[in-house]
Amino acid sequence: MKLWGGRFSKPTDKLVEQFSASLPFDKRLYWEDIEGSLAHTKMLGAQGIITDKDADAIRGALMEIRLAIEADDFDFDLADEDIHMAIERALIDKIGPAGGKLHTARSRNDQVATDMRLHLKRTLIVIAGEVAALQETFLALAEEHRDTVLPGYTHLQRAQPIFLAHHLLAYVFMLDRDAEKLKNCYQEADVMPLGSAAMAGTPLPIDRESVAKELGFSRLSDNSMDAVSDRDWLISFTAAAAQIMVHLSRLSEELIIWSSAEFDFVEIDDSHTTGSSIMPQKKNPDVAELVRGKTARAISNVTGILTLLKGLPLTYNRDLQEDKIYLFETIDIVSSCLAVTRGMVGGLAVNVERMAEAAGGFAVATDYADYLVVKGLPFRMAHDVVGRLVRFCLENDKEPVDLTLEELQTFDRRFAADALSLSDPKRSAAARISPGGTGSESITSQLKTARIKLDELQEWVSSGSTLA
Amino acid sequence: MKLWGGRFSKPTDKLVEQFSASLPFDKRLYWEDIEGSLAHTKMLGAQGIITDKDADAIRGALMEIRLAIEADDFDFDLADEDIHMAIERALIDKIGPAGGKLHTARSRNDQVATDMRLHLKRTLIVIAGEVAALQETFLALAEEHRDTVLPGYTHLQRAQPIFLAHHLLAYVFMLDRDAEKLKNCYQEADVMPLGSAAMAGTPLPIDRESVAKELGFSRLSDNSMDAVSDRDWLISFTAAAAQIMVHLSRLSEELIIWSSAEFDFVEIDDSHTTGSSIMPQKKNPDVAELVRGKTARAISNVTGILTLLKGLPLTYNRDLQEDKIYLFETIDIVSSCLAVTRGMVGGLAVNVERMAEAAGGFAVATDYADYLVVKGLPFRMAHDVVGRLVRFCLENDKEPVDLTLEELQTFDRRFAADALSLSDPKRSAAARISPGGTGSESITSQLKTARIKLDELQEWVSSGSTLA
Amino acid sequence: MKLWGGRFSKPTDKLVEQFSASLPFDKRLYWEDIEGSLAHTKMLGAQGIITDKDADAIRGALMEIRLAIEADDFDFDLADEDIHMAIERALIDKIGPAGGKLHTARSRNDQVATDMRLHLKRTLIVIAGEVAALQETFLALAEEHRDTVLPGYTHLQRAQPIFLAHHLLAYVFMLDRDAEKLKNCYQEADVMPLGSAAMAGTPLPIDRESVAKELGFSRLSDNSMDAVSDRDWLISFTAAAAQIMVHLSRLSEELIIWSSAEFDFVEIDDSHTTGSSIMPQKKNPDVAELVRGKTARAISNVTGILTLLKGLPLTYNRDLQEDKIYLFETIDIVSSCLAVTRGMVGGLAVNVERMAEAAGGFAVATDYADYLVVKGLPFRMAHDVVGRLVRFCLENDKEPVDLTLEELQTFDRRFAADALSLSDPKRSAAARISPGGTGSESITSQLKTARIKLDELQEWVSSGSTLA
Amino acid sequence: MKLWGGRFSKPTDKLVEQFSASLPFDKRLYWEDIEGSLAHTKMLGAQGIITDKDADAIRGALMEIRLAIEADDFDFDLADEDIHMAIERALIDKIGPAGGKLHTARSRNDQVATDMRLHLKRTLIVIAGEVAALQETFLALAEEHRDTVLPGYTHLQRAQPIFLAHHLLAYVFMLDRDAEKLKNCYQEADVMPLGSAAMAGTPLPIDRESVAKELGFSRLSDNSMDAVSDRDWLISFTAAAAQIMVHLSRLSEELIIWSSAEFDFVEIDDSHTTGSSIMPQKKNPDVAELVRGKTARAISNVTGILTLLKGLPLTYNRDLQEDKIYLFETIDIVSSCLAVTRGMVGGLAVNVERMAEAAGGFAVATDYADYLVVKGLPFRMAHDVVGRLVRFCLENDKEPVDLTLEELQTFDRRFAADALSLSDPKRSAAARISPGGTGSESITSQLKTARIKLDELQEWVSSGSTLA
Repeated sequence: MKLWGGRFSKPTDKLVEQFSASLPFDKRLYWEDIEGSLAHTKMLGAQGIITDKDADAIRGALMEIRLAIEADDFDFDLADEDIHMAIERALIDKIGPAGGKLHTARSRNDQVATDMRLHLKRTLIVIAGEVAALQETFLALAEEHRDTVLPGYTHLQRAQPIFLAHHLLAYVFMLDRDAEKLKNCYQEADVMPLGSAAMAGTPLPIDRESVAKELGFSRLSDNSMDAVSDRDWLISFTAAAAQIMVHLSRLSEELIIWSSAEFDFVEIDDSHTTGSSIMPQKKNPDVAELVRGKTARAISNVTGILTLLKGLPLTYNRDLQEDKIYLFETIDIVSSCLAVTRGMVGGLAVNVERMAEAAGGFAVATDYADYLVVKGLPFRMAHDVVGRLVRFCLENDKEPVDLTLEELQTFDRRFAADALSLSDPKRSAAARISPGGTGSESITSQLKTARIKLDELQEWVSSGSTLA
Repeated sequence: MKLWGGRFSKPTDKLVEQFSASLPFDKRLYWEDIEGSLAHTKMLGAQGIITDKDADAIRGALMEIRLAIEADDFDFDLADEDIHMAIERALIDKIGPAGGKLHTARSRNDQVATDMRLHLKRTLIVIAGEVAALQETFLALAEEHRDTVLPGYTHLQRAQPIFLAHHLLAYVFMLDRDAEKLKNCYQEADVMPLGSAAMAGTPLPIDRESVAKELGFSRLSDNSMDAVSDRDWLISFTAAAAQIMVHLSRLSEELIIWSSAEFDFVEIDDSHTTGSSIMPQKKNPDVAELVRGKTARAISNVTGILTLLKGLPLTYNRDLQEDKIYLFETIDIVSSCLAVTRGMVGGLAVNVERMAEAAGGFAVATDYADYLVVKGLPFRMAHDVVGRLVRFCLENDKEPVDLTLEELQTFDRRFAADALSLSDPKRSAAARISPGGTGSESITSQLKTARIKLDELQEWVSSGSTLA
Repeated sequence: MKLWGGRFSKPTDKLVEQFSASLPFDKRLYWEDIEGSLAHTKMLGAQGIITDKDADAIRGALMEIRLAIEADDFDFDLADEDIHMAIERALIDKIGPAGGKLHTARSRNDQVATDMRLHLKRTLIVIAGEVAALQETFLALAEEHRDTVLPGYTHLQRAQPIFLAHHLLAYVFMLDRDAEKLKNCYQEADVMPLGSAAMAGTPLPIDRESVAKELGFSRLSDNSMDAVSDRDWLISFTAAAAQIMVHLSRLSEELIIWSSAEFDFVEIDDSHTTGSSIMPQKKNPDVAELVRGKTARAISNVTGILTLLKGLPLTYNRDLQEDKIYLFETIDIVSSCLAVTRGMVGGLAVNVERMAEAAGGFAVATDYADYLVVKGLPFRMAHDVVGRLVRFCLENDKEPVDLTLEELQTFDRRFAADALSLSDPKRSAAARISPGGTGSESITSQLKTARIKLDELQEWVSSGSTLA
Repeated sequence: MKLWGGRFSKPTDKLVEQFSASLPFDKRLYWEDIEGSLAHTKMLGAQGIITDKDADAIRGALMEIRLAIEADDFDFDLADEDIHMAIERALIDKIGPAGGKLHTARSRNDQVATDMRLHLKRTLIVIAGEVAALQETFLALAEEHRDTVLPGYTHLQRAQPIFLAHHLLAYVFMLDRDAEKLKNCYQEADVMPLGSAAMAGTPLPIDRESVAKELGFSRLSDNSMDAVSDRDWLISFTAAAAQIMVHLSRLSEELIIWSSAEFDFVEIDDSHTTGSSIMPQKKNPDVAELVRGKTARAISNVTGILTLLKGLPLTYNRDLQEDKIYLFETIDIVSSCLAVTRGMVGGLAVNVERMAEAAGGFAVATDYADYLVVKGLPFRMAHDVVGRLVRFCLENDKEPVDLTLEELQTFDRRFAADALSLSDPKRSAAARISPGGTGSESITSQLKTARIKLDELQEWVSSGSTLA
């Protein structure tokens, strides 16, 4: 018989039992569920709502149950529906009717919301740690490649020469924003719903503050109806994870393109590629492709959780059971993708010569325009002059580096001898010294900023780890 | 060493191996994978590409492997990446180098596309069978409730009286469209990619027609590059499944609302509801809520597969591995939801009195307007007259049934004695005899049409079952 | 000829011109575009990159152009592609070649990112103001209904009696989280990309700090490649807007259900409903339905922007032009829905009697269990006792209020005379005094907390308004 | 006063009027709306429900209104809410009370569903015509490039040499599936809801068959409740459009990559590219990028319509008004993208030499393995041999073409003199003669198949055009 079965005259249909059980996936919350029950029991005892003896018995049994689960020595039964009922039943089996006191002043509605928030808080620390580790990897590679020049692209067309460090730092700053969002998620998750009971609160003299303190929550939920219905923190987490995945997918796309024979900018390490079952020469950037592919799943999880919540009347509705599917899957995707991306980036072999070669050619064209601007020509006219110069090159199969001073001057008399150096991509990149630009001072400054932010992040992760 | 490892100098990173393996989920394709290999082997032998002896050895071993898997006596090793490699390795372990001949003129690219299409074809028969069974359930209930009157709703406001059979038949016709889409999916899936090899075809003298015949495919793919890249059939299937789920979610919403104490139109059987961990009186329509919730997942799976495919260059990219996640999950959602919905609908207790009561009141207002139209008043003016009549009722706390002929005539002289019967909801419903309307002849005709279509569907399912 | 046409030998195809132009929608950015150009010009002059005379001429002309646009006296030409080119061309038309100096050290890539961030910042203040106004409306209604009792629902089943104020406060706290997210979006948007030029920075001696100060940006972007590619702030905004819409959709669903004849809890004012073209009695909750419907669009906009960004290589790609569609549409949806919802909530007529009636019956069942718990029965057993008591009532067509003390005692001897008052829903609600519960002290405390937070929000909105 | 305003005592709020009006976008349906009304009027007259005189007056006035709208001489007033009311009001203004007879036995619920289906049917013919035209363009290019060899890619790694015609044909077959889906959509849309009235049918003696015939509908809806709620055909259309866009996005991605300086496989015509506002050398594949970008929108429209429909109770709910946004936007996206893609593909300059060069190198590796298979080596061992051969080449900076017979034989004694020709990519491609492969016979056969299917499609489009 179900623990809630008093008013029912028929058992649950077997198919329904299987259909509606969340136990197969929510058992992942066992640790948090027991942690929450321990804190709740302690409070019930302290407030005299249950006797100290009962509280002690419950606590002891819960700890045994946790050990049993961790030792894979716990009998999960689908008929228990969910992890909460599974544990409560085991508790009653162990200590008899006193076990039935655990659920005093509590409902599965506030219990599961508490479990999930605890779980996400712990997980966010881990994910933020992965973000930091990936940033560390990028920074190390950037330090190595402060002088490696390659074309920066817009529209996948060579645009202007840049240093590879600058390109890599772009990802560091993306990840910095990701870390900020993860921290915001942590803030949002850090609110305790426990004590909201079914949705109206309880007449029993509970002490929510002490439970929150015990569980490491900073705040209490303000309104019990809202508390059991609210999954906003999950919207935020799935959106933050999707943002991270979008960043990783952009990097993956670049690594896939850069690994092509045509680009040949990088080689991904054998350990992070796979071969073909039929073509013996193939070495495929599978990891990057899978990361890109899993981004679709992360995106669809945002769609899913929002669509799930749309139009639900207050308060708890069983639809919400599905929230865990989005939570767990999103955690798994983002954690694993950050980890494998780190390995992939860390093992990249950069083809410095090939990059330099590609940075030559027309990518320096803007420098010619900027040169004319300094000599007083309005930018829009300078742009036009250089546009015609480029067309001349294309029609005559030349590149800027091939142009003589005389040729340059047929386009504009302002070109002088120093204009001949404009075709050097390294000079071009080094000259873009504006704050945030690819010029060397800017890179130094970016590296410094990035390091400071990363240190802060690592600090946050460390302090969170001790806590959780 | 990987079977494709010849050109590699380093093993795959352990984390990458775990990250990239599809074996944990694609082993679900073992039956189709072996089926495809058996047909492929037979053809290789018949064409003289491999010897009959080798072909026999391979076939024998494959059948043993299948039995082993079905007996849960097969050692799945994550290092094998996927079900294809797992089986090929087992084959080579069993019969030595001859096993290495199986993969002649084949690639995992065409192999997996073939496996998935086979799997979907089999599954579609099952899902269509579930659709038919649910239609059967609705039809039985509709037959029972040809005279049960209730309000039809627009905007969740009582609109016009209808018969419950009419309401239930709406779902039968939705499911009929669903079945059509499933059949279309079947057509789309019924194309064999095998023989496309990696993506360019093969120089070996294969016979694709015979393999297709063996595997029950009606057509061959036309272009090998398209064949290994194409997942359109999966777009169609996820969209069809989402449509089914949207229909089931609409029904679920109605059952949830109808089960509320305020509506009290139906009672869901104890076997298809659950109780509350805290509130002893609760009997919750959990099944309906879960179906509604899982609809969000089905929708997000359409988003996911489309987003996965967007912008992928030809031909096979590893991103495609994720397709199976959408395929399998969508199958599971739609199959289980159809099944539990059938149980839920089959066990509904209909509160006929309560429905009749609700169908009274103002739901008959259009009948007064139609009455005046028949008497020659333009509809728009008749609408206005009855609008004022309704306002009069509301202000005087009356319902149409309470109005005397004198009162009616103060609104329009055209009202005669027979207008007094307009307030009867059953009369109203019975009068709506236009084709497709709720009137009794129409219901008879709908039941007949629905039965014919359902018979055809069941015929299709039966013939498909023998085939698969 | 296009302003960028120097290297081209053929004009743009007419269809392509129409297809690719963003002018029809991005002209909405004219104010910000000119604001940015004014600040840029001032800096170019101050840094001596252009002469003061040119700077003055440009500034004067830009201000004239802005007035012309505002007076609807500006000739938008699709051939100009976008608002940036339209304004630059008008500038050159007005003041000749000097106008061609405006685009010095700038690209459309950093320009459009700046425009959009400015636009979003201004808009966020407005939307936050709408959130505050809606909270104000809820608070006023909550104050009025501190004693109005109605059932709280889980699974749309009556669960426990609550006060309407408590229910309304749930929405106030949801909106409070929404406001927090809007503020976070503001922080994210408050970073100036201008000065990143095409994507590599510029060799010209620009002063980004002064421009940022002029435009009211708190920070500079750190990396120019990231700056022109980054649309994370738009992910955040669409996600925040979707969250707001999810909240409004939940409210809408409730109002739709509550407006049904069966619930009859509220009546939406005539001014916020519409009638039927055919059924004269209908009064439909159209506003609520449209808000619910537009939620789907807001959700799909999150899907869209994420899918747009997935897998784009650095840096700017033309795909990004589509970002504005998501931005503008999301702004329009969320602003208008907040405004009409406010009107709808403000005009609600609450049916206090009907709510009270519904709160009776079985919603008080938990109170009987809690009573037994206080008397020492373990909760799980108390739950079971009351479950059987409920079944007894159902089978005998009684409600808790009908039970005599003798009857109660047949279920448990612990029931004493004071148990007879347990059936009063107001007593039940008032007793749930735990923090966040529906009890009166809790409501007082919630109202206070909500007021403090709302004051802070209004303060933020006011200070932002002066600024923008 | 609203035409439905009889029972209302207050006018609609101005903001609500603006918020809820669909007129700004649904006026696009004016043609179909009047077409439907003409057919409805004719039937009402023929059935004697209204007099012939009234029918004539209504028909005349409707035709005048249509001319006025087409001459841009019609006064649209937001207060009319939608196109249906705007036209009905104009009708009554023109001919007085008789105009009020048009809406007899009809509701906006069945009317709008009819209008939209008519609109989609007409539009599908146009879109299918665009698909056919794009196929024509691909076929012409394929004919031209039957001998142009390039690498086929998997994982964006060179896999095996193919002919460009084969690659282009892959898109022809994708578009063929797209056309099939459009035809299925047509079938689905080709069902007339008119006559369902509000949702229950009508007691008036209407003749639905004759109206359907007049409007060109093949079938009548079976159930009036379903008829006014059903938007399945829109799910299908948005999904079909998303599939088309996914195909176009894959092509776009390839053209973007192929246009990069590194690949340099194709040059997009100046007429279909744009320049940079800052970098004079740039020529950007904007059209391809925008097509890829708009794919995100098409995908999000599938998400949106499904999310809109989820969980709506029967029958019509105002949420459905939003359906038109998805319909119209999807039509515009898919039509324009097909058209510009056609222009872009038609104007491609193919760099035949560069492609041939890229097809050399390692792309022929599979041919060495196939060679050994023919000589009797099991494929898996042949794969391994060639894998080691590839590694040898990489380590010694050689390509297969550089290997001597002696070198080959150190890997396997089976290599004979004829193995030296294996390095020729054209030979490799030509040899893959299996059905659907890239070999020349296969291409001939594919071209033939494609032509037959295209002729059928064009036939369908032509016959549809006359009809619509």
